Amino acid sequence: MTLAEILAAVSRGDMTVNDAEPLVRGCFFENLGHTTLDHDREARTGTAEVIYGEGKTAGQLNDICAHLARRGANALITRVDADTAQALDVLQEGGRYDPLSRLVTVMRTPVAPAATTVAVVSAGTSDHAVAEEAAQTCEFLGSPVLRINDVGVAGLHRLLDRLDELRSARVVIVVAGMEGALPSVVGGLVSQPVIAVPTSVGYGAAFGGIAALLGMLNSCASGVSVVNIDNGFGAGHLANRINRL
Amino acid sequence: MTLAEILAAVSRGDMTVNDAEPLVRGCFFENLGHTTLDHDREARTGTAEVIYGEGKTAGQLNDICAHLARRGANALITRVDADTAQALDVLQEGGRYDPLSRLVTVMRTPVAPAATTVAVVSAGTSDHAVAEEAAQTCEFLGSPVLRINDVGVAGLHRLLDRLDELRSARVVIVVAGMEGALPSVVGGLVSQPVIAVPTSVGYGAAFGGIAALLGMLNSCASGVSVVNIDNGFGAGHLANRINRL
Amino acid sequence: MTLAEILAAVSRGDMTVNDAEPLVRGCFFENLGHTTLDHDREARTGTAEVIYGEGKTAGQLNDICAHLARRGANALITRVDADTAQALDVLQEGGRYDPLSRLVTVMRTPVAPAATTVAVVSAGTSDHAVAEEAAQTCEFLGSPVLRINDVGVAGLHRLLDRLDELRSARVVIVVAGMEGALPSVVGGLVSQPVIAVPTSVGYGAAFGGIAALLGMLNSCASGVSVVNIDNGFGAGHLANRINRL
Amino acid sequence: MTLAEILAAVSRGDMTVNDAEPLVRGCFFENLGHTTLDHDREARTGTAEVIYGEGKTAGQLNDICAHLARRGANALITRVDADTAQALDVLQEGGRYDPLSRLVTVMRTPVAPAATTVAVVSAGTSDHAVAEEAAQTCEFLGSPVLRINDVGVAGLHRLLDRLDELRSARVVIVVAGMEGALPSVVGGLVSQPVIAVPTSVGYGAAFGGIAALLGMLNSCASGVSVVNIDNGFGAGHLANRINRL
Amino acid sequence: MTLAEILAAVSRGDMTVNDAEPLVRGCFFENLGHTTLDHDREARTGTAEVIYGEGKTAGQLNDICAHLARRGANALITRVDADTAQALDVLQEGGRYDPLSRLVTVMRTPVAPAATTVAVVSAGTSDHAVAEEAAQTCEFLGSPVLRINDVGVAGLHRLLDRLDELRSARVVIVVAGMEGALPSVVGGLVSQPVIAVPTSVGYGAAFGGIAALLGMLNSCASGVSVVNIDNGFGAGHLANRINRL
Amino acid sequence: MTLAEILAAVSRGDMTVNDAEPLVRGCFFENLGHTTLDHDREARTGTAEVIYGEGKTAGQLNDICAHLARRGANALITRVDADTAQALDVLQEGGRYDPLSRLVTVMRTPVAPAATTVAVVSAGTSDHAVAEEAAQTCEFLGSPVLRINDVGVAGLHRLLDRLDELRSARVVIVVAGMEGALPSVVGGLVSQPVIAVPTSVGYGAAFGGIAALLGMLNSCASGVSVVNIDNGFGAGHLANRINRL
Amino acid sequence: MTLAEILAAVSRGDMTVNDAEPLVRGCFFENLGHTTLDHDREARTGTAEVIYGEGKTAGQLNDICAHLARRGANALITRVDADTAQALDVLQEGGRYDPLSRLVTVMRTPVAPAATTVAVVSAGTSDHAVAEEAAQTCEFLGSPVLRINDVGVAGLHRLLDRLDELRSARVVIVVAGMEGALPSVVGGLVSQPVIAVPTSVGYGAAFGGIAALLGMLNSCASGVSVVNIDNGFGAGHLANRINRL
Amino acid sequence: MTLAEILAAVSRGDMTVNDAEPLVRGCFFENLGHTTLDHDREARTGTAEVIYGEGKTAGQLNDICAHLARRGANALITRVDADTAQALDVLQEGGRYDPLSRLVTVMRTPVAPAATTVAVVSAGTSDHAVAEEAAQTCEFLGSPVLRINDVGVAGLHRLLDRLDELRSARVVIVVAGMEGALPSVVGGLVSQPVIAVPTSVGYGAAFGGIAALLGMLNSCASGVSVVNIDNGFGAGHLANRINRL
Repeated sequence: MTLAEILAAVSRGDMTVNDAEPLVRGCFFENLGHTTLDHDREARTGTAEVIYGEGKTAGQLNDICAHLARRGANALITRVDADTAQALDVLQEGGRYDPLSRLVTVMRTPVAPAATTVAVVSAGTSDHAVAEEAAQTCEFLGSPVLRINDVGVAGLHRLLDRLDELRSARVVIVVAGMEGALPSVVGGLVSQPVIAVPTSVGYGAAFGGIAALLGMLNSCASGVSVVNIDNGFGAGHLANRINRL
Repeated sequence: MTLAEILAAVSRGDMTVNDAEPLVRGCFFENLGHTTLDHDREARTGTAEVIYGEGKTAGQLNDICAHLARRGANALITRVDADTAQALDVLQEGGRYDPLSRLVTVMRTPVAPAATTVAVVSAGTSDHAVAEEAAQTCEFLGSPVLRINDVGVAGLHRLLDRLDELRSARVVIVVAGMEGALPSVVGGLVSQPVIAVPTSVGYGAAFGGIAALLGMLNSCASGVSVVNIDNGFGAGHLANRINRL
Repeated sequence: MTLAEILAAVSRGDMTVNDAEPLVRGCFFENLGHTTLDHDREARTGTAEVIYGEGKTAGQLNDICAHLARRGANALITRVDADTAQALDVLQEGGRYDPLSRLVTVMRTPVAPAATTVAVVSAGTSDHAVAEEAAQTCEFLGSPVLRINDVGVAGLHRLLDRLDELRSARVVIVVAGMEGALPSVVGGLVSQPVIAVPTSVGYGAAFGGIAALLGMLNSCASGVSVVNIDNGFGAGHLANRINRL
Repeated sequence: MTLAEILAAVSRGDMTVNDAEPLVRGCFFENLGHTTLDHDREARTGTAEVIYGEGKTAGQLNDICAHLARRGANALITRVDADTAQALDVLQEGGRYDPLSRLVTVMRTPVAPAATTVAVVSAGTSDHAVAEEAAQTCEFLGSPVLRINDVGVAGLHRLLDRLDELRSARVVIVVAGMEGALPSVVGGLVSQPVIAVPTSVGYGAAFGGIAALLGMLNSCASGVSVVNIDNGFGAGHLANRINRL
Repeated sequence: MTLAEILAAVSRGDMTVNDAEPLVRGCFFENLGHTTLDHDREARTGTAEVIYGEGKTAGQLNDICAHLARRGANALITRVDADTAQALDVLQEGGRYDPLSRLVTVMRTPVAPAATTVAVVSAGTSDHAVAEEAAQTCEFLGSPVLRINDVGVAGLHRLLDRLDELRSARVVIVVAGMEGALPSVVGGLVSQPVIAVPTSVGYGAAFGGIAALLGMLNSCASGVSVVNIDNGFGAGHLANRINRL
Repeated sequence: MTLAEILAAVSRGDMTVNDAEPLVRGCFFENLGHTTLDHDREARTGTAEVIYGEGKTAGQLNDICAHLARRGANALITRVDADTAQALDVLQEGGRYDPLSRLVTVMRTPVAPAATTVAVVSAGTSDHAVAEEAAQTCEFLGSPVLRINDVGVAGLHRLLDRLDELRSARVVIVVAGMEGALPSVVGGLVSQPVIAVPTSVGYGAAFGGIAALLGMLNSCASGVSVVNIDNGFGAGHLANRINRL
Repeated sequence: MTLAEILAAVSRGDMTVNDAEPLVRGCFFENLGHTTLDHDREARTGTAEVIYGEGKTAGQLNDICAHLARRGANALITRVDADTAQALDVLQEGGRYDPLSRLVTVMRTPVAPAATTVAVVSAGTSDHAVAEEAAQTCEFLGSPVLRINDVGVAGLHRLLDRLDELRSARVVIVVAGMEGALPSVVGGLVSQPVIAVPTSVGYGAAFGGIAALLGMLNSCASGVSVVNIDNGFGAGHLANRINRL
Repeated sequence: MTLAEILAAVSRGDMTVNDAEPLVRGCFFENLGHTTLDHDREARTGTAEVIYGEGKTAGQLNDICAHLARRGANALITRVDADTAQALDVLQEGGRYDPLSRLVTVMRTPVAPAATTVAVVSAGTSDHAVAEEAAQTCEFLGSPVLRINDVGVAGLHRLLDRLDELRSARVVIVVAGMEGALPSVVGGLVSQPVIAVPTSVGYGAAFGGIAALLGMLNSCASGVSVVNIDNGFGAGHLANRINRL
């Protein structure tokens, strides 16, 4: 019974107050809970549930996808390695796997595209995978993407050259490994919110992305915030949220 | 000479191409550079320069403020301790010092208020200073603020109680120390961008905010990004950028 | 209105279903929330709220205590330094400050003592302050305490000598700094749950309690769990919970 | 000779005091020592010895199991990978291997079940393996288990929905990776002891479980203690100890 | 159009000032940018671009090399594993792969050798790979190299024996793992700039080169600076810069 | 009753076997325990108890010293700051406080000097305090000391100059901060056991002695072991143990 | 006796080979050693000894200075706090103390100035102290300095504006705190050796300079090497070495 | 020419002083250096050179062994994996490979056994490999070994049972992973020098041996020093040095 049904029954005298009170308490969260998990999250947070693929078996992922398919929902699975991807049923049913971003996307219900654009800027060739995870997440959620690659701070003119393009976007994602300096430079040049994504690119004292992460957290430019190392999905998801405000 | 003046001189034949080329190169950055520092940053990034007060003497700060005063610019100085604040001339000239947030604000040119609101949520009483730095930065930049304090995850109902209010804001800042779990809970409940601010509140394995920082970077909720430990200013600045999109 | 009152009004026909639904939703958490904070926490978790004193001013603490006093509630404030304590009004009203444990306790409503005992074992003289914070928290919550001090692993016989006493307790708290080895030794000798408290005692590679913390987390003895560095309160609180099962 | 036999010989005059003294000293620990290792541990700590399987060869484990088999003892081997498990003789003799929890269990002497229950709560699908290690350890030791999976803080209603069930248990184990926020939320909702288990689930700044571990150690909720990263066994063992008090 | 061409067009009256201004702005960075990336870097920094090979596919590297080949440029690719190297086209076209240093070098335009020498000193046999990366980088860029291997501080006479040779070089690179003490000893014996390269050689508390890195950063000898762990290329590149001053 | 008395009573028939058994078990550890703490430790480990002064009040230290004085025992108190020292009664009774090493020594019973010597080598002037703690601990325990100061690796000849002296000692303590390279160099030159003491001397990436500690743990010279940062006492104590073998 | 005198005595037959051999061995290091410490270091490394002032008393420093004064040597003392400086005799004898750089300099023998310049670039006002330590060290050693302050990456045009000046120097020192991105940007723009100095400026995740240090070690620009956090002296010393090659 | 030959030539008048001086300087280190590396090290440090096998190819090791074989020297190679071992020629020539300790030993010249014994104590089965590396190193160098395995602190009686044996040794090596508490317990029970070896045994917050390492460095028992994680060789080498004093 939904909350409305319970209240109606009480109103009709079909249910006593004493009987209703525990039911209301009990169903309250059931009202939130018995709607499928994904619908509820969409209601609360505006975005359908995304499946974190790492550490899940193909079997588990197939189960989840079948469940979503019944409801005609779109699906985004992150961090899927190539072997797991090959065993996913959705790839036979219109789903798509991109080995660079490691995303599986199933688009059943078209998403109305946003009017404005998210720029995804990356510092080096080795940062492309994470940049693509960010960019394709934006696109899956309906935000068009402007890609600007290979514009690391060791060759500033490459970035300066494309500044006008960059300034045309509504939100800017900056992906960088090693010293992670690019978000500070970009943050000093634009007036948009900048989402910085440190990558695990580098070696030695890069410490798997710690150097880039710390660099970004300490950015001397204002307007920069940071997500987890290699978390292209998180950056794309947030950028879309901001882009659609 | 501005770029336009040089080009005009070349066009009139008052300047040869050979003479003009180095001038253009030279003035190009001067064109960006000879506008005062603050004007330029405002042009590029949409916000007037903010003065990082920590480690600067009252003398240095007075110099900077005098310079800004001549141009009628508003001023925001962060991380000013009480002793330094007492020696600041601007406090005699309409400036204001808030000992909790440690901000000095001088408002000479009124800022048009934004139509939408930034929510600043804090987990505990000890996080108030950082939350106020965020909130007052928003207000200085013209974004109205909804404050929701003391709603840490150990007593969820306090947060759930104010969910409707929270959902009325356009951007949400969440300030928390210790385990820094509040942004994950908030991020799972709202559809707005969430800016998480770890604080150095706690002891032992809180490690001066590292525990909270890591917790926030690893948030299982989407739509959350993070700024530096205790960086209320950075969160407020970014929130205002997003709020004014 | 409480949930019961709303339901009654609906039942009597004084309120329509449409009017009631948002009220129920809205008051649901108010039902949890409008009971005072402390009553609610006690209802949910079995223990009255404890005030984390660090970083709060004497003024703030006096406000909180006055609020609690009106309800006749007992109060426990942790991590209060001597200067702050001196400015607390409750010390004039029957409250007590212990400079070793840095606890302020106000006992207005006697707590029925538990039938069984919590043992608090400490490794060295320098660990006493944290051990006392644990022991006095237990006593405040009604669990009698057996104190066994100065029985670090460098002189095993001191511990072995008191093994029978130790085995008479229902729960054992073990407090140790430096290498934090004592919980492993105790855990191998007793059948009770062992709560290990690392302290910041030591220097150099003790790293403010990290060495002890890691030692305890890696205990080769079963039945040992760990709380934060110097968190005597947390250990005492948990020990009382277990002791009263 | 046992201590009793020596004393009897002295009493009968068959042994002088001078001869007996060193024998008593020598055999004292032998009295503890020549009883098999497991019997003694059981006497001291209430639980039969558990074999830490990691880093042991199948041959070593078969030896240990054969030794235990002769005494009819139950056996629990932790952290056994699938290859090693296949080479274990006990699997032909009624033993059982669970590839998810990586536990080998041999149940020869039935354990009287406890009257009360341990709840094992996990935050995400990827935390199941550790949660099962905890749950199956409890069951091996005779504590019935209530499993509540996939109730991470990004979707609070899932947890709130099952709060009554949760409150029916006597001890609560909470297993979570990433930011490890779930124990704080649970700890704020229940009155039972909470044992938090951080897992190595996550990537980037999760640092193999450090983020979750620090989050749990700094929990703002009282009544929470922590075991090592991925230490489901330790949590289960301790939970059973508490459950059987 | 180059800047000169634009200015000439304005001068001739073929282009208005209004038309020229955006073109000048736009081409300014294009002037830097439309020369191929490598020419520009060479102009700015004196050294042709070096390709960071790690994480790039053979296909990507072949593309880049083909692009460089058209311009007759020399190429240096770092951190190439043996499998990738085998798939590189340049190895069929005069390129050379050294499996120890993991460098691919393609020398099309001879570099005039420097008159002075760079010494590359290594502490142990296991440091050779990094030392060779440094040495071969120097040689690729035209600096002759003096190699002094296996002269770690546990056998000082080996180093002292070759001091005269060492003092004949213009710059000294010192490569060491484990405790990284060799640069301090060398720095105390010579008057040249010393570039210290920590290596990841060692185990346990060597922490993949952190011990050596910290040792070198804290060198009590003056005149020592440090590059990233295992960054032989960076040291060689810098040494050549200094050697050619 | 002592063990001998119990056995005698059993032998005489004054005590039954049943009565004796628990008494024997019970007194066994009392036999170890009722000897005073210090006598026992001396019996077990060959050295009288040393008092760790840090964090103890002058009052506590006076109590301990009075207790030791009654037994005529020598006393060594470590890490005593100047203020505490001034309030110690033993300084009026023949005790001595050295502000450099922060040791308080009370010598009541002369210790027979060892025939061989401990060398204490330090790298820099700032390491003297720790070196003196080591040296004076040796002297208190009866080992003569050879001091060799200021012979850090940046000026090798200073050490080489005194090599013969150094080789005349039986054990070598090497005290160094910053990069902590001296023990490796010494370890490569002598055949004695080398005890390395990292100090917290340095700044920046010295990290309070971590750099020196890691350097020493990774020493490429054999025969080197390490004690805690700034633990001159521990090194001196161990050196004396070895020197007296 | 010097080596030459011994050899002469042997040559004259005044000394037998057997007698000479140990003398030669013995004096060899004495030949290095009995020259005063500073002369020798100058001979070996080209620079007079510099005194590390931190942790030395005014008395110790006065002794050292008196010793140097007798030989007419110049003196440079680093990291001297204001209180210590006031007690230094050399300040009455022509010495100079700069409270910003905390350097004491005594110039008795003029140093021939180098023909080329060292550029000292700093990112922010708070980095000035370290930049001045670097600059004044260069000047003390005879290298003229070009100072470029406040040109951090958040406002790139400030740096670009002064690029020609910067390129006129022979060596570049770059001083930056927070994310330490400036050396990467500078390294991508110039062809000189770049010495990067991380500073402890910043808060939170700046971790006292670790963020800047890691950023600099991972610089994506070639030709950059790094010294210890806040080690302006080390950078200046090395820059002078390179500048004078 | 040896030093003696040069001196003799000078004495005979066959060489002038001027000619001799540089020769003496030059050969001095050659005098140390031209004896083969191993002989010299043996002369200086009392132990033949040991080969660090990790990261060396079978080819390199065969070269080194052939070189040593010519001189009839014993050889010890550490950290040799099974694959490399199989390719070593010395195994066909009387050498021996132990897969547990990963040591290759070639004993050509018998070593006179020491009169006293080294005890090697280990905490758990998983620590055996490191304990055997320590024990077999002792035996290779001529020190008899007493092995006491599996006596971790979770079952103290196992250790106490063997205390007399333990006290009969001259030096004690204690090998432990996880929390590394065993050295503290042993150090409190014996009067010998204790060398503690942390192992990388454990998981989660064991951090590859860091927990054990920190535990041992902070031992509250005196007389304990520590070597690198898993450095059984280093402990054995040092123990033999002490045992042979």
